[in-house]
Amino acid sequence: MRINGERLKKTITDMAQIGATPNGGVTRLALSDEDKDARDLLKRWMIETGLEIRIDDFGNLYGRRPGTDPEAGAILIGSHLDSVPAGGRFDGVVGVLASLEVLRTFKDLGIQTKRPVEMVNFTGEEGARFSPPMLGSGGITQMFSSSFIYDRVDADGVRFEDELIRIGYRGESPHRAKNVQHFVELHIEQGPILDTERVPIGAVEGIVGVSWLEVTVRGVRGHAGSTPMAMRRDALIAASVMVSAIAEVATQADKDLLLTVGKFVPRSSAPNVIPDEVTFSVDIRHYDSLIRKRGVQAVKDLLMSIGREKGVDVSVVDLWNMEPTVFSKSLVELICEVSSFLGYPVRKIRGGIGHDAKYMNEICPSAMIFIPCVEGKSHCEDELASWEDIEKGTNVLLHVVYRLAQQ
Amino acid sequence: MRINGERLKKTITDMAQIGATPNGGVTRLALSDEDKDARDLLKRWMIETGLEIRIDDFGNLYGRRPGTDPEAGAILIGSHLDSVPAGGRFDGVVGVLASLEVLRTFKDLGIQTKRPVEMVNFTGEEGARFSPPMLGSGGITQMFSSSFIYDRVDADGVRFEDELIRIGYRGESPHRAKNVQHFVELHIEQGPILDTERVPIGAVEGIVGVSWLEVTVRGVRGHAGSTPMAMRRDALIAASVMVSAIAEVATQADKDLLLTVGKFVPRSSAPNVIPDEVTFSVDIRHYDSLIRKRGVQAVKDLLMSIGREKGVDVSVVDLWNMEPTVFSKSLVELICEVSSFLGYPVRKIRGGIGHDAKYMNEICPSAMIFIPCVEGKSHCEDELASWEDIEKGTNVLLHVVYRLAQQ
Repeated sequence: MRINGERLKKTITDMAQIGATPNGGVTRLALSDEDKDARDLLKRWMIETGLEIRIDDFGNLYGRRPGTDPEAGAILIGSHLDSVPAGGRFDGVVGVLASLEVLRTFKDLGIQTKRPVEMVNFTGEEGARFSPPMLGSGGITQMFSSSFIYDRVDADGVRFEDELIRIGYRGESPHRAKNVQHFVELHIEQGPILDTERVPIGAVEGIVGVSWLEVTVRGVRGHAGSTPMAMRRDALIAASVMVSAIAEVATQADKDLLLTVGKFVPRSSAPNVIPDEVTFSVDIRHYDSLIRKRGVQAVKDLLMSIGREKGVDVSVVDLWNMEPTVFSKSLVELICEVSSFLGYPVRKIRGGIGHDAKYMNEICPSAMIFIPCVEGKSHCEDELASWEDIEKGTNVLLHVVYRLAQQ
Repeated sequence: MRINGERLKKTITDMAQIGATPNGGVTRLALSDEDKDARDLLKRWMIETGLEIRIDDFGNLYGRRPGTDPEAGAILIGSHLDSVPAGGRFDGVVGVLASLEVLRTFKDLGIQTKRPVEMVNFTGEEGARFSPPMLGSGGITQMFSSSFIYDRVDADGVRFEDELIRIGYRGESPHRAKNVQHFVELHIEQGPILDTERVPIGAVEGIVGVSWLEVTVRGVRGHAGSTPMAMRRDALIAASVMVSAIAEVATQADKDLLLTVGKFVPRSSAPNVIPDEVTFSVDIRHYDSLIRKRGVQAVKDLLMSIGREKGVDVSVVDLWNMEPTVFSKSLVELICEVSSFLGYPVRKIRGGIGHDAKYMNEICPSAMIFIPCVEGKSHCEDELASWEDIEKGTNVLLHVVYRLAQQ
């Protein structure tokens, strides 16, 4: 039993026309005209596949293939069609269209499963237009209230609910996914590990927890020509020592601890002015909550100690904390087993970024299948996954879903 | 023989009304309406003092008090009335109005000097509206051509010459300062040394040389959650290690070597994105050209070595070089001698910033007298010099000018 790789390739290529950018990417922001067109196309394909269509109150679009047991919980598969501005053709899309391909394959082969199998296109996963990310999956798993989601506004002040109605995708709350046995999401890795190791399949064990700190370092402004080195309280030098030391903490502590300073903003910026204030972020991730929290404390201690040593004021704000997600161990093992059965190299891997599966895991045992993306590039027009890997990943999804649907 | 401190205080206070900001500073950009008003007021005061008024082709405004010897070279004193946006009341202004006070004192006391004594208000010293700085003094010392100066435009595209004509201060090129024996400029230090050491008079030995480098560090963009630490080529970490190391070079090399990273601009700036590019400036100053040039080379070597170690690309551009200025040793000694004669503590000091005296030194032996400014603050509304120090500095100027004018 294998999916039709050529058909899947054509499906993905056709979908990539909607919101296509000149450099090979797509811009398909949530609830935009392009998002509507993408949904309309997907809906047509789902109807052609004989699926029962359903749209819930957040615009999540479902296609259901009934099972033989009307009481059995469904196997839900899918991802999202929305993109960041000038994003890639694969992020989210592969998961949605691989799900369609699985259901097309069941149809072609006349396979009747015990459990219903449903595919879903979640609304507003990227958070690029309406923030925060993962609104559709967060809505049905009650991470967010309906009114919270409906009142999200984009940069132009346009409301989520108004746009949802405008594009004709406001459905009914009873249509939300329910009685779901498992959720499985296929996605490009968005990191370099599988590509570097040349492994086509990643069985995702979970998603790291994240803490964000916002650090402000205050020194004293001065003129580069008239302030002796010994009299300076240079905020940029102090902040630079902090960033270097944070990088050292990362390499010395647990090898999976990820520490990133991504935002770094000196207040003044002229060659002959000694900077008096720098603000920077620290992003701290680990799969183990305790190690992450120890990392947060180690960073804070380090910042304070360097601040004292350099004679600058340091303030640290805890901006955000998200606990790690641990996916179903048995599903992870199933993905490994199926991959080996199909003859595809597989490795267990941990996700570092939020996905719809993260929230779905709150209401049912969930899992993710990663496939490589070239050089780990994602959220850009260069984003690329090979057709071979997409096909392999979809075959893994096919067999995983089949086995789960027969249990 | 002493100047009239109360009169000088009133003069400075009156001048500070023109372009006054709510927080006690002034905004008096070169060739603006406020600059015109300041010039008009100064011209009125100079005429009241019986000076011969002259305006040259760059708008430099002179007031001359003839000497007994019609052939003798003049003693020129002065500074500038223009300011940076939201600048201080003292930078430049003290030098111009102290010069006026010296000439008022000569008039009051009926002192007739052998040499003529001239005061000058230079045009566009700050470079805040029309760049580069020191256009008026640079013009008459032929550092810049007339056409270069006339074609300078401000941020709105307005030409220097057009504004000079508009405010009525385009004079004649034969009016430029000539047959000048010495130039002496009184100025606030704009640094913390005199204030910290509680010394009212600085005899400025010269002005440091400056080199500017522009450094670009290029790494690889990545996601904070999905890129293992060992696979990163983080431009911000590399740049931070460079900034820290540059600060170390400064403390380990010559103690007077000044190394400043003032501009530091990461390209991307989001908490969860590994930065791929950072651009920063390095400002390198020393009074000794050789030490400065060795410093430049040491910084370049360091940047390249850290770049190799961190696996990032580094490019370094030599943006600007300015050789040091050495003021007349005999004038420096005269300032020290006069200060001691007046009972004021004095120390030799080196200037770290460009001043009109720097260019004037190219055509005649020149010198500067520094007075303290509180905490070294300058180019800000907080800029403050005490009336006592201003009075002392002006008395030193008075006696220096008197002695020079009788030689």
